[in-house]
Amino acid sequence: MDTQFSQEANTSIEPKTWSQRFESALHPAIARFNASINFDIELIEYDITGSIAHAKMLAHTGIISPQEGEQLVAGLEQIRQEYRQGHFKPGLDAEDVHFAVERRLTEIAGDVGKKLHTARSRNDQVGTDTRLYLRDQIQQIRTQVREFQGVLLDLASFHVETLIPGYTHLQRAQPVSLAHHLLAYFEMLQRDFERLGEVYRRVNISPLGCGALAGTTFPIDRHYTAQLLGFEQPYANSLDGVSDRDFAIEFLSAASLIMVHLSRLSEEIILWSSQEFGFVKLKDSCATGSSIMPQKKNPDVPELVRGKTGRVFGHLQGMLVLLKGLPLAYNKDLQEDKEALFDSVKTVKACLEATTILLREGLEFRTTRLADAVAEDFSNATDVADYLAAKGVPFREAYNLVGKVVRTCLEADKLLKDLSLEEWKALHPAFEADIYPAIAPKQVVAARNSYGGTGFEQVRLALVAARSKLK
Amino acid sequence: MDTQFSQEANTSIEPKTWSQRFESALHPAIARFNASINFDIELIEYDITGSIAHAKMLAHTGIISPQEGEQLVAGLEQIRQEYRQGHFKPGLDAEDVHFAVERRLTEIAGDVGKKLHTARSRNDQVGTDTRLYLRDQIQQIRTQVREFQGVLLDLASFHVETLIPGYTHLQRAQPVSLAHHLLAYFEMLQRDFERLGEVYRRVNISPLGCGALAGTTFPIDRHYTAQLLGFEQPYANSLDGVSDRDFAIEFLSAASLIMVHLSRLSEEIILWSSQEFGFVKLKDSCATGSSIMPQKKNPDVPELVRGKTGRVFGHLQGMLVLLKGLPLAYNKDLQEDKEALFDSVKTVKACLEATTILLREGLEFRTTRLADAVAEDFSNATDVADYLAAKGVPFREAYNLVGKVVRTCLEADKLLKDLSLEEWKALHPAFEADIYPAIAPKQVVAARNSYGGTGFEQVRLALVAARSKLK
Amino acid sequence: MDTQFSQEANTSIEPKTWSQRFESALHPAIARFNASINFDIELIEYDITGSIAHAKMLAHTGIISPQEGEQLVAGLEQIRQEYRQGHFKPGLDAEDVHFAVERRLTEIAGDVGKKLHTARSRNDQVGTDTRLYLRDQIQQIRTQVREFQGVLLDLASFHVETLIPGYTHLQRAQPVSLAHHLLAYFEMLQRDFERLGEVYRRVNISPLGCGALAGTTFPIDRHYTAQLLGFEQPYANSLDGVSDRDFAIEFLSAASLIMVHLSRLSEEIILWSSQEFGFVKLKDSCATGSSIMPQKKNPDVPELVRGKTGRVFGHLQGMLVLLKGLPLAYNKDLQEDKEALFDSVKTVKACLEATTILLREGLEFRTTRLADAVAEDFSNATDVADYLAAKGVPFREAYNLVGKVVRTCLEADKLLKDLSLEEWKALHPAFEADIYPAIAPKQVVAARNSYGGTGFEQVRLALVAARSKLK
Amino acid sequence: MDTQFSQEANTSIEPKTWSQRFESALHPAIARFNASINFDIELIEYDITGSIAHAKMLAHTGIISPQEGEQLVAGLEQIRQEYRQGHFKPGLDAEDVHFAVERRLTEIAGDVGKKLHTARSRNDQVGTDTRLYLRDQIQQIRTQVREFQGVLLDLASFHVETLIPGYTHLQRAQPVSLAHHLLAYFEMLQRDFERLGEVYRRVNISPLGCGALAGTTFPIDRHYTAQLLGFEQPYANSLDGVSDRDFAIEFLSAASLIMVHLSRLSEEIILWSSQEFGFVKLKDSCATGSSIMPQKKNPDVPELVRGKTGRVFGHLQGMLVLLKGLPLAYNKDLQEDKEALFDSVKTVKACLEATTILLREGLEFRTTRLADAVAEDFSNATDVADYLAAKGVPFREAYNLVGKVVRTCLEADKLLKDLSLEEWKALHPAFEADIYPAIAPKQVVAARNSYGGTGFEQVRLALVAARSKLK
Repeated sequence: MDTQFSQEANTSIEPKTWSQRFESALHPAIARFNASINFDIELIEYDITGSIAHAKMLAHTGIISPQEGEQLVAGLEQIRQEYRQGHFKPGLDAEDVHFAVERRLTEIAGDVGKKLHTARSRNDQVGTDTRLYLRDQIQQIRTQVREFQGVLLDLASFHVETLIPGYTHLQRAQPVSLAHHLLAYFEMLQRDFERLGEVYRRVNISPLGCGALAGTTFPIDRHYTAQLLGFEQPYANSLDGVSDRDFAIEFLSAASLIMVHLSRLSEEIILWSSQEFGFVKLKDSCATGSSIMPQKKNPDVPELVRGKTGRVFGHLQGMLVLLKGLPLAYNKDLQEDKEALFDSVKTVKACLEATTILLREGLEFRTTRLADAVAEDFSNATDVADYLAAKGVPFREAYNLVGKVVRTCLEADKLLKDLSLEEWKALHPAFEADIYPAIAPKQVVAARNSYGGTGFEQVRLALVAARSKLK
Repeated sequence: MDTQFSQEANTSIEPKTWSQRFESALHPAIARFNASINFDIELIEYDITGSIAHAKMLAHTGIISPQEGEQLVAGLEQIRQEYRQGHFKPGLDAEDVHFAVERRLTEIAGDVGKKLHTARSRNDQVGTDTRLYLRDQIQQIRTQVREFQGVLLDLASFHVETLIPGYTHLQRAQPVSLAHHLLAYFEMLQRDFERLGEVYRRVNISPLGCGALAGTTFPIDRHYTAQLLGFEQPYANSLDGVSDRDFAIEFLSAASLIMVHLSRLSEEIILWSSQEFGFVKLKDSCATGSSIMPQKKNPDVPELVRGKTGRVFGHLQGMLVLLKGLPLAYNKDLQEDKEALFDSVKTVKACLEATTILLREGLEFRTTRLADAVAEDFSNATDVADYLAAKGVPFREAYNLVGKVVRTCLEADKLLKDLSLEEWKALHPAFEADIYPAIAPKQVVAARNSYGGTGFEQVRLALVAARSKLK
Repeated sequence: MDTQFSQEANTSIEPKTWSQRFESALHPAIARFNASINFDIELIEYDITGSIAHAKMLAHTGIISPQEGEQLVAGLEQIRQEYRQGHFKPGLDAEDVHFAVERRLTEIAGDVGKKLHTARSRNDQVGTDTRLYLRDQIQQIRTQVREFQGVLLDLASFHVETLIPGYTHLQRAQPVSLAHHLLAYFEMLQRDFERLGEVYRRVNISPLGCGALAGTTFPIDRHYTAQLLGFEQPYANSLDGVSDRDFAIEFLSAASLIMVHLSRLSEEIILWSSQEFGFVKLKDSCATGSSIMPQKKNPDVPELVRGKTGRVFGHLQGMLVLLKGLPLAYNKDLQEDKEALFDSVKTVKACLEATTILLREGLEFRTTRLADAVAEDFSNATDVADYLAAKGVPFREAYNLVGKVVRTCLEADKLLKDLSLEEWKALHPAFEADIYPAIAPKQVVAARNSYGGTGFEQVRLALVAARSKLK
Repeated sequence: MDTQFSQEANTSIEPKTWSQRFESALHPAIARFNASINFDIELIEYDITGSIAHAKMLAHTGIISPQEGEQLVAGLEQIRQEYRQGHFKPGLDAEDVHFAVERRLTEIAGDVGKKLHTARSRNDQVGTDTRLYLRDQIQQIRTQVREFQGVLLDLASFHVETLIPGYTHLQRAQPVSLAHHLLAYFEMLQRDFERLGEVYRRVNISPLGCGALAGTTFPIDRHYTAQLLGFEQPYANSLDGVSDRDFAIEFLSAASLIMVHLSRLSEEIILWSSQEFGFVKLKDSCATGSSIMPQKKNPDVPELVRGKTGRVFGHLQGMLVLLKGLPLAYNKDLQEDKEALFDSVKTVKACLEATTILLREGLEFRTTRLADAVAEDFSNATDVADYLAAKGVPFREAYNLVGKVVRTCLEADKLLKDLSLEEWKALHPAFEADIYPAIAPKQVVAARNSYGGTGFEQVRLALVAARSKLK
C-alpha cells in the first residue's frame, strides 16, 4: 500500500504526488494503526455535504469552471446514493472517509475529481464534517429532551395531588406533591436544553477554508460555503479553526450534565421500585425477570442509565486530556476526538429514549402506597409548631414543645395524628380539634405556598409555566 | 459539644431545640469529620450579605417587625467589620460558617438573632452563599480574561510582520505572522469569555426561600430577596433549588477549557524558550535559575500552569462523581462541592495572572532567530507550485514538479532559495527571476489572504475586529 | 527578594551564587506563584530525616569531614525540635521547605550548612521526601484498614444467624446471613490491604543521589543512604529516579478503590437507615438532627464518605493528566504532585476513621425488623423447587410449577408460607408438611452451603479464615 | 420477542419458565437498550471454556450424569468450531452471549442443554468470562511489554557512547548517554510488567459457583472448576464474587500507567523529530507525508499514541464512576464494565505494538547532530567547578567563579571550550591545559559515575542488569 496521506494533504489524492520523497511504503501494522476509516465512516454523509458546498464555492469563485463544479456535485451525490444503497463500502485501505470519497469521486468523475481538494486541507475538512455531524446530533438530542420534558409534564399534570415523601439525607423530611418532584427534573432538563442551544452556537462555525493551518492563496469565499452549509459564520482565525476542539468538550460537558440528571432520576426509580419503598410498579414492557426467582422484576433500564453515566464522564475527561498542552496547529492526536464524541452521542440518545419510554409507559405510581407513606411519619412536625405560632404561642416556645411531643410519640410508638385531643391539650391548652386537619398531609403540602414551593397553588402555576416553555 | 446541626437546620441556633431527641453528644472525631468551618469560612461575607437580604425581606413582609429587621442588619454588619478587622475567628466548634455567624449575631443582638433563620434552611442558605461567591469570582475571572486578551492584542499589534514557523504535527508547515499565531489564543479566550457569561446567567439565580426542600409556610417574598441580592430570578422549583449544582459543574467545565488554552500556550512557550527553538528569551523577572548550572533559565511559570491543568480537570470530574445518582433533595454529599470550587477559582485566577505577567513583561521574541528560522526550511514549497500554476502550468504538473525539486534540494542539502536561476529553468522553463521574491517568507505569508488566513491584510483586519471586542 | 531557586539547585543556598547571571529579581506575583512552602511544609520532618541521612553519607564517604557531618546532623535535629515546638515557621519568602531548612541550618551551623547540599539536587531531594512521607502514610492507612476489618469481623461474628435480605438490582433475591454480607466488605478491604502493600514496595525506593538528572561526580554511596532511610534499594536509573511519579498514581489508584468500597458500604447504610428499609438505627454519637424536623436523624457520615469519593478519583485523574506527555527528566509541573497526594491521604484516613467509628459504635442493626423482612417476601421461591426436586419431581417441571405458585400467591396477596397444606397438595401431591420448615428463611440460608456461600457453616468457616488473616 | 432474561437467570433458557409472571413483552427499544450481544460476543470463547468446566464439574459431582456431561462438552466444542468457522453468528435477539450459546447448545444437544445452567447464574458466569478474557489479555500485554523492553535494550546497547542533551525544564542541563536515557524507559516498563503481574493475581480468582449472589444449594465443587480453568482459587465470599470489579479498575490503572510512559516517550520522539531538535530521522515505513508540503514527514505514530492516552484515562474514570456507591450484590450497571475494558485492552496493545515497531525499525538517531548538540552548550559548567575543586580551590569559591565565567562567555557569545588557556588562567591560576579534556562532553558524562548515574561504567552495568531481567 502506498498511501500515506496525513490529515493535512492539501490537493491531490494521487499518492505518487508526495510519495516521491518517500522511498518505502508504510509498515502494514502502522497503516492499520493510523487508519480511521472504521469509525469516521460515520461522517460520510457530512463529508459529502461539505464537499458539495466546497465544489460549489470553487465554481462560484471561478477557481474551477461551472461545468467542473457541476460534475463534482453530481459525482458526490452519486456516492451518497451508492452509500445509502449499501453499494459503497470503503475498506481499510481507504485510510479515512475523506480519502475514500475522493478516490471514488475520481473513479466516477475522472480527473476533475482531483480538483475537489483545491484550496482545502483535510485539517479544515475533518473539522467541517465533525461540526456538521454534531450540529445535527445536538438538534436531535434537543428534540429528545423536549419530548422527555413533555412526558414529565404529562405525568406531573396527572399527579398534582398525589403526595410523596420528600427527602433530605434520604430521610423523610416533608411531604411534597409528586408533580412538584417531577417538575424538579423538568427544570434540570430545561437547563440542559438551554445549554445545548448555547453549545450549538459555538459548534455552528465553519472552519472550511482554514486550509492546513494558515489559510490559502486561492481566492476562496469562506462566507459563501459557511452560508451554503448553514453555519453562522466562518472561523476568524485559521490556526484556531483547525485546532479548536472546544466545541467537542462543551458538548461532552453538556452531555455529562444530562447524564447526571438521568442518573439521579434513575437512582430514585430504582429506590421507588424496591420492595421497601414500593412507590412504583414497573410494567412488563420495561422490566426483566429471573428464570429462578419468579418474584423479581428488575429495573434494568434505570440501572443501565445510571451505569452509562461514567462512560460519558470518561469521554469528557479523555477529550480534556487529549487537548492538554497540545501546541498549534493540527496534530494527529486530534483524530482521537471522534470515537468519544460518537459514543457519547449514542449513549445520551439511547438513555433519553429509554428513560422517556420508561416514564411514559413503563411505570405506574402506586398511589395508595404513597398516600399511606406520607401519613405514617413525622414529616408534619413543623406544622404543629406553625399551628401554635398562629394561635399566638411564641415562636421559640412552640418549637421547643414540638420536640417534646415528637419524643413522647416515638416512645409510645405513636404518630402525631394518633394523639387524642386530651393529649394535645395536656401538651398545650391552645390545641383544639382543628389540629387534626392542620397536620393532615394534604394540608401540610398545601401550606407551603411560597414561590417555587410545593403548595398545590404553586405547583399549578408551575405547570402552566412549564407548558408554555414547551410551546 | 452538643451541637449537631445538619445543613437543613431551619430555625434555631440553640442546640437544645432539637437535641432533645438526642440523648448523647456527637463523637468528637465525627464532629470533626462533619465540620466545614475550616473551608467554608471563605463564604463568610457572602453569608452575611445573604442574611442581610433575608432579614430585610422578613421585615418587608411583616414576618418580623421593622425594628427587629434593623437590629439584625446592624448586627450582621458588625460581624462583617469584626471579621475584616480580624476580631472574629470562629473555631472548629462552630461547625460551619452559617452557624458561626448566627451564634455571634445572637451574642450581639440577643434573642432577636434567633429570628434570622425564620423561613430559611441551611440548604437554601448555603446555596445562596455559594452562588453569590461564584458570581463574584466569575466576574473577576472575566476581567482577567479581558486583561489577558489585551496583552495578547498588544503583543500581536507589535508583531504583525514578525514571521514564525507555523507547525502541524510539530513539523514546520507554512510560515505565519506571529500576530496571527497570538490571535489564535485571543479567539480561544474570547470563547472563554462568552462561556463564562453564559454560566454566569445560570449561577445568578436565587435558591433563597426554597427552605429545606419544599418551600415554607411563611409569607416570604423570594423575588424581593432575589432583587436585593442582584439575582436575575428565584429558582422556580424548591427541590431543584436546594439540590442543583449544575452551575458548579458548568463553571468547572468552563474553567477546564481556560486551562486547556493556557496549557497549550504554556507548552508553546516552553518549546520556544528551549535552546533548540530559541524563539523567545525569558526575562529574569519570570524565570528561575539553578545554583549549579549557570547557563539555565527555567520556564517555571508555563510549566506550573501546564501542571495545574490536571488539577482543574480533576475537580470537574470529582464534582460530576459527587452528583451522579444522588436522589433528591439535599444530601450531605453536597457539602463537598465547595473545596473543589474554591481551589479551581484560585488556580484559574493565579494561572491567568501569571501568564498575563509572563506575556506582558516576562518574555521577548527573538525576532532575528525567527526571521532566520522561516528562511531555513521548505515551508515555501507550496508557493513554488502556485507560481507555476499562475504561469499557466497545469495544476497537477506543477505539484508533481515541486515534489521533485524538494527532493533534489534535500539531496544536495540546499534550500529552494539557494537554487540558481539556471537550476530553476532546468526544472521548468517557466521559472523567471521573479521566483525569488515569490518564495520569500514574507510573500509566502502575505499570499495567504483568504478570510481568517495569515496574510498581513487579513491579520490587520483581525486586529481591528479583536480590538473592537475589547471595548 | 533575590531568591530564585529552582527545584534542581544543587549546592548552595546562597542566592548570589547563581543569581549573578540574573540581573533583576523575580516579579513578586511570580514568586508567589512559584512558591510551594505553604503546602510542602507538610514534608518538613521527612526533609530533615532525609538530610540527616545525606549528611551522614557525606561524612561516611569522606566527602565532608566527620566533624562537619556531626555539625550538620546536630543542626538538623535542632531544626526538628524548633519546628515541633512551634518556633520555626518559615514564611513565603522561603520558597520551599528544602530551602527553608537549609537557610535555617546555615544560620545555626554557619558555613558548614552550605555543604549539606553537596552531591544532591532538589530534584532527588523532593522525591526522597515525598516517598518517605507516603511510605509512612501507607503504613498508617494499612493499620486503619486492619482496624476496620477487625470491626467488620466483630460485627460479623455477632450476626452469623441474623438474616438480611440479599439483593440484586436492589430487588430482594435471596436472604443471606448478615455476617456473610459484612464479610463481603472484609474481602474488599483485604484486597485494599494487599494492594497497599504492593504499592509500598514501589514507593520504598530511594531516588537520593540521582542528582538533578544524571547522577553526580562525587563518590557518593546511594546504598548507604537508602539503608539509613529504610529504603529497599536505590533507583537504578537517575533520569527515572527524578521523574518517576508512578508510585503516586499507584497510591491514588489504591486509594480510589478504598473509596469505592467505602462508598458502597455508605450507600447501603444510607439505605438501611431510611424509614423504608429501617434495617439500622443510627446512634446519637454518629448522626445529626434538624432543628425543625424532630423526627430526623441524618446519616451524615456515610453521606460525606460517599461524597468524598469523587474527590479522590479527581486527584487520581489530575495526577495522570499531570504526567501525560511530560518529557524527561524533571519538570516544574511535578511540583503539583503534592497537594493531590496530601489531600487524598487525609481524605482516605478521615473516611476510614469515621466509617470505623460508625460501624463500631454508631449503628445498631434492628434485628426484629430484619427477621420480619426476610419472612415477608418470595425470596424462598427457589427452595420450593429444590424441595420438589429432592422428592423426585423432574427439575424442569418443578421450576415451572414454582412460577405458577408464586403468581397465584401474588394474585391472592399471600406469601408462600401462608398456603395451607391443602393448597400445597393441590399444586402438587408431593408436598408434605415438611415444606414449611424447608422454606423458612433460616433453612433457606443454611442450604446455600457451597464454598463461599451464605450457608451458616460456610460463614463460620469464613470467619475463622478472616480472623486468621488479621493475626 | 418474549425473552427477558436478566443477568441472574439461574437455570433455564426457556423464556416461558419465568415469563409466566410477565404478561406482556419487552418494548423493542428497551430490548435493544438492554442487549449486550453486540459487544459481549468478544467473550464467546471464554464463555464456552467456562461452560465446559462447569459441565465437567456437574458430572464430576454427580449433579448430572457422566453421559450428560459429555454431551454438554461435545455440544459446546461444536459451537466453538461453528463460531471459528463463521457459521455461528448470534443476532440481537440473543440478548447476550451467554444466552446465545445456551440456546444454540439446546438446539444441538436437546433437552440436556437446559441442564448446563444448573447451579450457576449469569452473575457468576459473566464474571468468570471476563476474568478469563482479561487474564489472557494481561499475558499478551506482558509479552508485548517484554518485547518492547527488548527493543529498548538493543537500542541502548548500541548507543552507550552516543551522547544526547539531558534536560530539566526542557532546558539543557547535563549531557547523558543515550543508552541511559533509553534505559529510563526500560525501568518504567519494568514497573508496568511487575504491576501487571500483581493485577493478574487478583484477576485470576474464580467467581464461578457464587450463583446469583448467595451460593447455591447444589453440592458443587468450586475448587474443581477453578482448577480446570487455571484459576488460583475461588472467591471466598459469594456476594463479593459477583459484585467485585476491583480487578478491572486495577487493570485500567496499570494500563493508564503504560500509556503515561508511552506518551512521555512519544512526546520526546515528536520533539526529537522536529526540525529544531533534529535528533531523530523518521523512516518512511513509520511516517506520513503531505501531498502539498513535500518537506514534511509527520510523526503520526507517537502523536496518535499520545492522543490515545486520554482514552484509557477516561475508561479508568468511567469504571470508577460506575462502581461508586453501588449497593451489593449484582446490579445491571455492571454490564457497562466490558466495553471500557475491551477498548482499553485494544488501545494498549495497539500502542505498544506501534511504538515497538517505531523504535525497532522506524527511526534513526542522527548521531552527528547529537554529537554537535552536546558540544554547543554550557551543560559542562558544573564540571569546571569540579575541576577547580579537585585542584584544591575551596568549593564555594569554585562555584562562584563558574557563574562569572559563564556570564562572561554569554556576553562574548562563546562557549567554555572556546576560551583560550590565557583566558582560563586569567579567571583562576589553577587552570591548566587539562581543563579542555575535563570539560569535553564525553568526560562530563563519564564522570557521573555514581550508582544509577549516566557514567558509561554505570550504564554498562545497568545494561547487564536489564538484560538479566528479560531472561
